[in-house]
Amino acid sequence: MPTIKKFIYFFAEGKADGNGKMKDLLGGKGALIAEMVNSGVPVPPGFTITTEVCNYFAQNKSNFPSGFDKQFLQAIAKLEKTVGKKFGDVKDPLLVSVRSGAKFSMPGMMDTVLNLGLNDETVVGLIEKTGNPRFGYDSYRRFIQMFGNVVLGIEKAEFEDILGKKKEELKIKLDTQLAAEDLQSVIVQYKKLVKEKTGKEFPQEVLTQLALARDAVFKSWNNPRAITYRRMNKISDNLGTAVNVQTMVFGNMGDDCATGVGFTRNPSTGENKFYGEYLTNAQGEDVVAGVRTPRPINQLEKEMPAVYRQLRQITDRLEKHFRDVQDFEFTIEKGKLYMLQTRTGKRTALAAVRIAVDMVKEKLITEEEALMRVEPEQINQLLHPVIDPKAKTEVLTKGLPASPGAAVGQVVFSADEALVQSKERKVVLVRMETCPDDIHGMEVSEGILTARGGMTSHAAVVARGMGKCCVAGCEEIKVNEKEKFFKVGEVVIKEGDWISLDGSLGQVFLGKVATIQPTLSGDFGKFMKWADRIRKLAVRANADIPRDAKAARQFGAEGIGLCRTEHMFFAEERLPYMQEMIVADNEETRRKALAKLLKFQKEDFKGLFREMAGLPVIIRTLDPPLHEFLPKTKKEAEELSKIIGVPAEKIWARDEELHEQNPMLGHRGCRLGITYPEITEMQVEAIIAAACELQKEEKIKVIPEIMIPLVGHLNELKDQKALAVKVAEETMARYQVKIKYLVGTMIEVPRAALIADQLATEAEFFSFGTNDLTQMGMGFSRDDAGKFTRVYLEKKILKEDPFQVLDQEGIGQLVKIGIEKGRQTNRQLEIGICGEHGGEPNSVKFCYRAGMNYVSCSPYRVPIARLAAAQAVIEEKQKIEYTSK
Amino acid sequence: MPTIKKFIYFFAEGKADGNGKMKDLLGGKGALIAEMVNSGVPVPPGFTITTEVCNYFAQNKSNFPSGFDKQFLQAIAKLEKTVGKKFGDVKDPLLVSVRSGAKFSMPGMMDTVLNLGLNDETVVGLIEKTGNPRFGYDSYRRFIQMFGNVVLGIEKAEFEDILGKKKEELKIKLDTQLAAEDLQSVIVQYKKLVKEKTGKEFPQEVLTQLALARDAVFKSWNNPRAITYRRMNKISDNLGTAVNVQTMVFGNMGDDCATGVGFTRNPSTGENKFYGEYLTNAQGEDVVAGVRTPRPINQLEKEMPAVYRQLRQITDRLEKHFRDVQDFEFTIEKGKLYMLQTRTGKRTALAAVRIAVDMVKEKLITEEEALMRVEPEQINQLLHPVIDPKAKTEVLTKGLPASPGAAVGQVVFSADEALVQSKERKVVLVRMETCPDDIHGMEVSEGILTARGGMTSHAAVVARGMGKCCVAGCEEIKVNEKEKFFKVGEVVIKEGDWISLDGSLGQVFLGKVATIQPTLSGDFGKFMKWADRIRKLAVRANADIPRDAKAARQFGAEGIGLCRTEHMFFAEERLPYMQEMIVADNEETRRKALAKLLKFQKEDFKGLFREMAGLPVIIRTLDPPLHEFLPKTKKEAEELSKIIGVPAEKIWARDEELHEQNPMLGHRGCRLGITYPEITEMQVEAIIAAACELQKEEKIKVIPEIMIPLVGHLNELKDQKALAVKVAEETMARYQVKIKYLVGTMIEVPRAALIADQLATEAEFFSFGTNDLTQMGMGFSRDDAGKFTRVYLEKKILKEDPFQVLDQEGIGQLVKIGIEKGRQTNRQLEIGICGEHGGEPNSVKFCYRAGMNYVSCSPYRVPIARLAAAQAVIEEKQKIEYTSK
Repeated sequence: MPTIKKFIYFFAEGKADGNGKMKDLLGGKGALIAEMVNSGVPVPPGFTITTEVCNYFAQNKSNFPSGFDKQFLQAIAKLEKTVGKKFGDVKDPLLVSVRSGAKFSMPGMMDTVLNLGLNDETVVGLIEKTGNPRFGYDSYRRFIQMFGNVVLGIEKAEFEDILGKKKEELKIKLDTQLAAEDLQSVIVQYKKLVKEKTGKEFPQEVLTQLALARDAVFKSWNNPRAITYRRMNKISDNLGTAVNVQTMVFGNMGDDCATGVGFTRNPSTGENKFYGEYLTNAQGEDVVAGVRTPRPINQLEKEMPAVYRQLRQITDRLEKHFRDVQDFEFTIEKGKLYMLQTRTGKRTALAAVRIAVDMVKEKLITEEEALMRVEPEQINQLLHPVIDPKAKTEVLTKGLPASPGAAVGQVVFSADEALVQSKERKVVLVRMETCPDDIHGMEVSEGILTARGGMTSHAAVVARGMGKCCVAGCEEIKVNEKEKFFKVGEVVIKEGDWISLDGSLGQVFLGKVATIQPTLSGDFGKFMKWADRIRKLAVRANADIPRDAKAARQFGAEGIGLCRTEHMFFAEERLPYMQEMIVADNEETRRKALAKLLKFQKEDFKGLFREMAGLPVIIRTLDPPLHEFLPKTKKEAEELSKIIGVPAEKIWARDEELHEQNPMLGHRGCRLGITYPEITEMQVEAIIAAACELQKEEKIKVIPEIMIPLVGHLNELKDQKALAVKVAEETMARYQVKIKYLVGTMIEVPRAALIADQLATEAEFFSFGTNDLTQMGMGFSRDDAGKFTRVYLEKKILKEDPFQVLDQEGIGQLVKIGIEKGRQTNRQLEIGICGEHGGEPNSVKFCYRAGMNYVSCSPYRVPIARLAAAQAVIEEKQKIEYTSK
Repeated sequence: MPTIKKFIYFFAEGKADGNGKMKDLLGGKGALIAEMVNSGVPVPPGFTITTEVCNYFAQNKSNFPSGFDKQFLQAIAKLEKTVGKKFGDVKDPLLVSVRSGAKFSMPGMMDTVLNLGLNDETVVGLIEKTGNPRFGYDSYRRFIQMFGNVVLGIEKAEFEDILGKKKEELKIKLDTQLAAEDLQSVIVQYKKLVKEKTGKEFPQEVLTQLALARDAVFKSWNNPRAITYRRMNKISDNLGTAVNVQTMVFGNMGDDCATGVGFTRNPSTGENKFYGEYLTNAQGEDVVAGVRTPRPINQLEKEMPAVYRQLRQITDRLEKHFRDVQDFEFTIEKGKLYMLQTRTGKRTALAAVRIAVDMVKEKLITEEEALMRVEPEQINQLLHPVIDPKAKTEVLTKGLPASPGAAVGQVVFSADEALVQSKERKVVLVRMETCPDDIHGMEVSEGILTARGGMTSHAAVVARGMGKCCVAGCEEIKVNEKEKFFKVGEVVIKEGDWISLDGSLGQVFLGKVATIQPTLSGDFGKFMKWADRIRKLAVRANADIPRDAKAARQFGAEGIGLCRTEHMFFAEERLPYMQEMIVADNEETRRKALAKLLKFQKEDFKGLFREMAGLPVIIRTLDPPLHEFLPKTKKEAEELSKIIGVPAEKIWARDEELHEQNPMLGHRGCRLGITYPEITEMQVEAIIAAACELQKEEKIKVIPEIMIPLVGHLNELKDQKALAVKVAEETMARYQVKIKYLVGTMIEVPRAALIADQLATEAEFFSFGTNDLTQMGMGFSRDDAGKFTRVYLEKKILKEDPFQVLDQEGIGQLVKIGIEKGRQTNRQLEIGICGEHGGEPNSVKFCYRAGMNYVSCSPYRVPIARLAAAQAVIEEKQKIEYTSK
């Protein structure tokens, strides 16, 4: 005779049949309850029906395995005995909740029925027992509504409709204003609705209620919503859900009752101090509803000292047990404490770091565990001033959270205006979209707001680089740059009006909003040191000017991974020479203009090298198409004509000649250096001359790495490398100084990744330009993709914006191919990434796994990358430990 | 005692030491001479110094291996004995030529010295012997010049200078007008020049002359020119060159002398008729110089019947020996015939096909060999009218040979003008560049000339599709479309002026130039049948309209590989509806406009399906960005406003809203179908309804294949496929007809190739769009790349334009990855290519090797693809035979 399988796991009073490891069988919730119960935590008693039953039920036309019914009835009997109440008892009825609980949390598909066990008779018993008719009828009303919706499939709106009409009739606004009689009449109408919709009376038999609710939960595992959710989250369809049947407890049965929520430590500051709120004689939802003001939890100590002590003991134990801050809910029913829920507490970045460091001190967790406790992205909060969360403000409109932090200032509509006005006041630059011409204005503004452009638009990238707050792609605003105002709906904001931006949330506020300046505490420093100790990936920064380089170094950058030389050409005193060079119709004139730029470039590089003394600095030769430097209007062409003495028509003609259909795929990158070798020559001379002078005159060690952009063919790299080496050798000979320099290539054209084995025979380093690699590999123009990617994200065609999070599945393949092939022919090859992804935690982890040597990101993201790099090592280690088990 | 190596291979009178297989040792030329000699062909006797000697010489500081000198002197002695003349004999001197000859032909680096053996004394003997002082002195002058240049390194120009001055002094223009005395004085000056430049007298000792010439040829193997050439052509540096020393023969020693050139068959028509020209008492160069008019070779039969018979016998034997048409040179010296050269004869396409077919008939070659004898690209000549090669014309300017054939017509500057004027006269459309709006004008023009755009510009692609002549990217012309004229330098061509285009050569002529209409002979049909029998790759055509489909079928297309539905929307009566749809600001209005387009689309598809009855037709859903359909100017917007009743400002605003920085990477392809599902719905309905109606009403079998463009993510394909299947099923249910249709995807985004295994789980076919794959994979915008690819081709960064010839090394990897991964998850997957490359022979061969099922190309290239596909099979077979040996 085979032993009958155990289908139901009971839990009550310090003893549960299951335990925390049985998530497969009991689901996440069931296992957690068992774990709490076994740790002596008081939890309302009940039982869990296993996932196996669910699977049997699904595969056998809603039948149960043999022996199940008996175990089910036994469990109910045992529960009645434990609680001392009877299910359906008209005097003192046992009420239960019925909830689903799968192995993995599936929010939104979980079906829950509360207050099950109420009917026309038991509700009277409940009222008598509590002496609270309003509570009794409200509980019954809620039960009918939940059961009607979840089990009987009646639209929630139909119930809400009845309730709404009742309130209208009574001219009241809140549910709490409904009296017991009102609720009684609602119940009558609810039951009528059920009859209408199902053709049957609302079930009064409590065992029927329970069986129906149980079956509904099991069936919900295979509702379309749940199936879709599992597909999307790659959860197997074979897991099944468990069903948890648990005694209801009430915090609103009198003054010896209470309900509350809390944290074992302060989730805002991380301080190791018990933290929470409670209400006596109240229901859980009252605490959050804001009708009554909850009291700080330490007052419970005076009110119910024994219960408070017990709560402290329990929550301390839970924190130690789960080795992390707990966010808990509790109810006190007639002086008896019940824990309803405990889970890992969400916290601010500040708190996360402090808690992690404290717990290491307390020997509760290891340094590695501590590092895993802080979301790298959170660190952002610690590096920028932020909008004071306490400031009561109304959001005017929302855009993309393009660069974190806060900005408060008076609106200006042009970069030049920003430059002038910023001398006297704080300004926020508002533009349709920014372009390289605007950089001087962006530098002096508190923040930038644009109507167009995505997370990697010019405004966003530059602002992040500067560590400046930016809200981009704020589509609701209509900017009129000419007449100097912008509109949001009917609201008009003129030049000089105050606005505030929250770059972390993408919010725009009218007027001045208070901000707070977070400070990097000592804990943060200690925490980052742990990260540095464990990580293997170096972290460099993308920086074009000494100020950014300095900031980067302060944030822990170990070199510069990308210096974009083109930004240097936009400065006011240089642009005309650049333009002169571009307009030149022969090599000689071009060389003359370049000679003038040479001295500026050399000084730029000296500044950068000084800040990065002893660390490698990658400088990319000219990348953008030349027309970006030319005047945008005929008027500007005329102005330029006066400066450089070339006829305006000629300038304009050149402008038109350089116009491209798809500049992204046009005459740029190394294609410029190949068609105009004199540009590369000038830049290499400036780099090497700067290094020679610093080494000779200031004894500063310089490690320049010359990077050729947009290479797609070996011959391109050969051509530019030969030129670079020739000029470098000549320059060093002239200075009689020897500099160790490298010549390498960007890998940003898909073809480059495919022929990386060839490129690595010439290149001394690779730097993956994943922005362009994503643009070309996916065929998405960064400047234009916004229009359809919004729909793509809504329709779940894409899970994430590929310009924010590296597309590991597709573009990641090109990265892996590039690394693998590159190392095949050049084992010494130094490999990194300098796209925007270099500062995005998941992408950083991918880069580590793919075998890169470093990542490079904007200065303000350096600490984020450092932490992500450390986590990558820990995660890989865990994976290996797991596999070797 | 080791046997001494053989360094020198002698050849004379029917017996050579070497043979045709000894190319490694004797070089190509030496081996060929040996082969001819052994076949009994009279060749001026001489000897070949082996490549081994060259290598020894290079590696041993210009010394020779031991024993060489002795063999060298013996060879000279043997040659003197054979010829019956003595080297340096003042009465009857032996004269020789000294030429290099490597294993692989290296044109341009070959050094040659003729008439070696002449000096101040032997020249007198030569004159006495020939009785021709002018001939003697001219030979001597030429010798000094060649020797001075090749051996002594004096610039050719310095000699030419002396000669030029002499002619000036005498007021004559041609070298032939110089008398013996004039040449004597030139010789004096030449020798003075040599003395000046080298510090030594011109060497009079003939053995010294020979030794110096020999060494110079050996050294030329390692001159920079040769090294570069070998690098570029991947020829090993270790091969070395041979040196051929051969007796000079003269066709200008009297009336029993002659010289001529010929072909064993007519190289223009292929007719099996001896073909050539000759001159009596003349030098080889006189035949080509055009000073005297050569006579047809059959006259030689009367003049020197015995020699003529011998020549016929020899050339017949050579043709049989080499199993191909021979292009030969001969000289008759004093009644004795010498063959100077024989090589495979170049021929026209017409001749190539006829010769190949004839030779199979003659059992000289197999069908497979015949197929390998015709360059697929040549076939082009057989399909289009061409400029009559006999027409004496001056080229006005040159552009890119964008679409072959010839066009003669009167110039118009707009598509509308073309439409109007073409009703009364033949027109050639001249534009800065064309756009989809111009299609109606292109259709009615004889040919198209554009100032901008490359081989795959809009004009080029559309013209090739239409089989219409096009010269594109003709940068020298300045087009003024407004004032209706264009300029080339100072030449002004106005509307109505006649011009002619040669689309095969990219030439533009002023006025009307004669053209010829080639006819497809029966041989061509037979030849193509052989190709079809052997090839495994199917060939489809890219065709959008019934006329093109019909042409394609006539050219042997086995289906349509790409129908671009967007072309249908540009027709005059439809465009406004399309525009109405685009301007619509809600789905309802959009659907109304689409409903109007539906009936047009359905009729279009019916027309196409009728032509392709029983064959598959791939129809691509809407691909280009919507702004391409909107008005380009405010004025056009106002006109449209009147038609569709939408305010012009709104149209213009929509235009601006849709503007993109990089439309190539923007909102197009399936991104349109996903954001506006109603477009896909309409198109699928039109396709399936058309198929249903034809099947029901006309009993025509239709095999529609619906293709989703620009897919990069599995979810995109899922979305569009689900939509397509839903609409298709609904439509078939409505008609109560069952159609077998497929849904597949373009592979044109690099990411699509990388995730082809995923895509193949949904797609029923793949079609590689290698145009876009090249654009994105290499980061080259077709519209813009012209500017730098020209430099790239000049600088040899690229060997070929990747839009013409598929980049097998880079983009080819993506194609291979895509095929391999696609077949991994779907073995039934039908795979083809529909980019421009589908009609380029090398790319077609690649597609076969990569494992595709078919290629698709413009109708006029179908026969080319058919032949290339056959050759691919033969080449692979040969490779396998070679490897298995």
